[in-house]
Amino acid sequence: MEIIRPLDIITQSKGKEILVEMKNGKQYKGKLVASDVHPNMVLEEVTELDTNKKLPWIFLRGDNISLIKPPE
Amino acid sequence: MEIIRPLDIITQSKGKEILVEMKNGKQYKGKLVASDVHPNMVLEEVTELDTNKKLPWIFLRGDNISLIKPPE
Amino acid sequence: MEIIRPLDIITQSKGKEILVEMKNGKQYKGKLVASDVHPNMVLEEVTELDTNKKLPWIFLRGDNISLIKPPE
Amino acid sequence: MEIIRPLDIITQSKGKEILVEMKNGKQYKGKLVASDVHPNMVLEEVTELDTNKKLPWIFLRGDNISLIKPPE
Amino acid sequence: MEIIRPLDIITQSKGKEILVEMKNGKQYKGKLVASDVHPNMVLEEVTELDTNKKLPWIFLRGDNISLIKPPE
Amino acid sequence: MEIIRPLDIITQSKGKEILVEMKNGKQYKGKLVASDVHPNMVLEEVTELDTNKKLPWIFLRGDNISLIKPPE
Amino acid sequence: MEIIRPLDIITQSKGKEILVEMKNGKQYKGKLVASDVHPNMVLEEVTELDTNKKLPWIFLRGDNISLIKPPE
Repeated sequence: MEIIRPLDIITQSKGKEILVEMKNGKQYKGKLVASDVHPNMVLEEVTELDTNKKLPWIFLRGDNISLIKPPE
Repeated sequence: MEIIRPLDIITQSKGKEILVEMKNGKQYKGKLVASDVHPNMVLEEVTELDTNKKLPWIFLRGDNISLIKPPE
Repeated sequence: MEIIRPLDIITQSKGKEILVEMKNGKQYKGKLVASDVHPNMVLEEVTELDTNKKLPWIFLRGDNISLIKPPE
Repeated sequence: MEIIRPLDIITQSKGKEILVEMKNGKQYKGKLVASDVHPNMVLEEVTELDTNKKLPWIFLRGDNISLIKPPE
Repeated sequence: MEIIRPLDIITQSKGKEILVEMKNGKQYKGKLVASDVHPNMVLEEVTELDTNKKLPWIFLRGDNISLIKPPE
Repeated sequence: MEIIRPLDIITQSKGKEILVEMKNGKQYKGKLVASDVHPNMVLEEVTELDTNKKLPWIFLRGDNISLIKPPE
Repeated sequence: MEIIRPLDIITQSKGKEILVEMKNGKQYKGKLVASDVHPNMVLEEVTELDTNKKLPWIFLRGDNISLIKPPE
């Protein structure tokens, strides 16, 4: 992956599964549909890791995100 | 749903029921009436999930929102 | 109520009783006198719900507001 | 009192006694000397309500203020 | 003291002893050397009130300041 | 290392292993791939120090970072 | 030291040992290499006071800094 700016790794993850950890520690795994510079993000085919609930989609507010990593 | 920018999923949810989780963990389910870029939001026919109270409408301040997802 | 932008529901509540919940969970019920885009707000004929104290008026700082809803 | 914008109630309280509650819950009662748009504020003839200490003046930083109300 | 804007009381305290309380409740007493609009501040001949330690100077970051008052 | 502005030490760490501590105390060690002015950062060959998990990469949101230091 | 603006005391501490306290209370002692207006800072020959660990350098994010003072 050619990463020049940090946000590149998010845009290049479009269509791939990623894991997002929020500032409150909650984690969400899903396929990245869209992201912006905050980075607000929309995932689909989502799993809420702490409840194991399945969701068709989720909107995660950028300023509440702590980190993003590949799914374990 | 054609999602280009993350906020598209909110604007495309207008008139539909969504579930909003605030930074303090409180959740509100209701029909999306209006939203903006923060995203401040107004829902109607609202249920406060932790008290099960019914409200005709609610204004949720954007910077206090953590995530938005379809109702369970 | 014709709500185009979320803040419309606040401006259209002018003169009506509303309930405001702050980020620390405290709730204030009163008649909306004025609001702005933050939304800083002034209520009159106010009840502090957790102490049941009556106040002639209150100024609530916008960035400390979590949500606004009709009085229960 | 003619209140058009919420901050009007602060400017119109100049010279009067008001009660200011900070985000950490501490309350200060005193005569309003000056305020600005944040609203940073200076009170004089001040009482720190939780210690009952008397102070000639106090500067309260705007972003740490939660609400303002008339003294009880 | 002629206070038009709240920050005037800080600029007019230059060379005088003041007491600064931070958002975490820690208090610092010292002679005000310099301040700006945030208000970042530099005090000299400083006492850390909770440890009673003496310091030649201290830089206090403005956004972490809660209030400023005369020394007790 | 010639460090004129603080962010220089991050840009000059590109390709090197660094340790990043987040505001919640969690620490991540990895090779710096990209950074920007916030400083959002992407690390690869990552170790989550508190779980010892290995990750191919991680995106760390700048405003949630507390400090950066060389690996111990 | 000629201090006109508060940040002057940081720029004038370049090459000198200072002690930086973060918002979470952690303290770092080291020689100031670089600082900017936030004030992001880089120290070298660093001691992490609560663990007594020695580090060749550290980058401290400005918005997470509470205060700066001379080493005790």
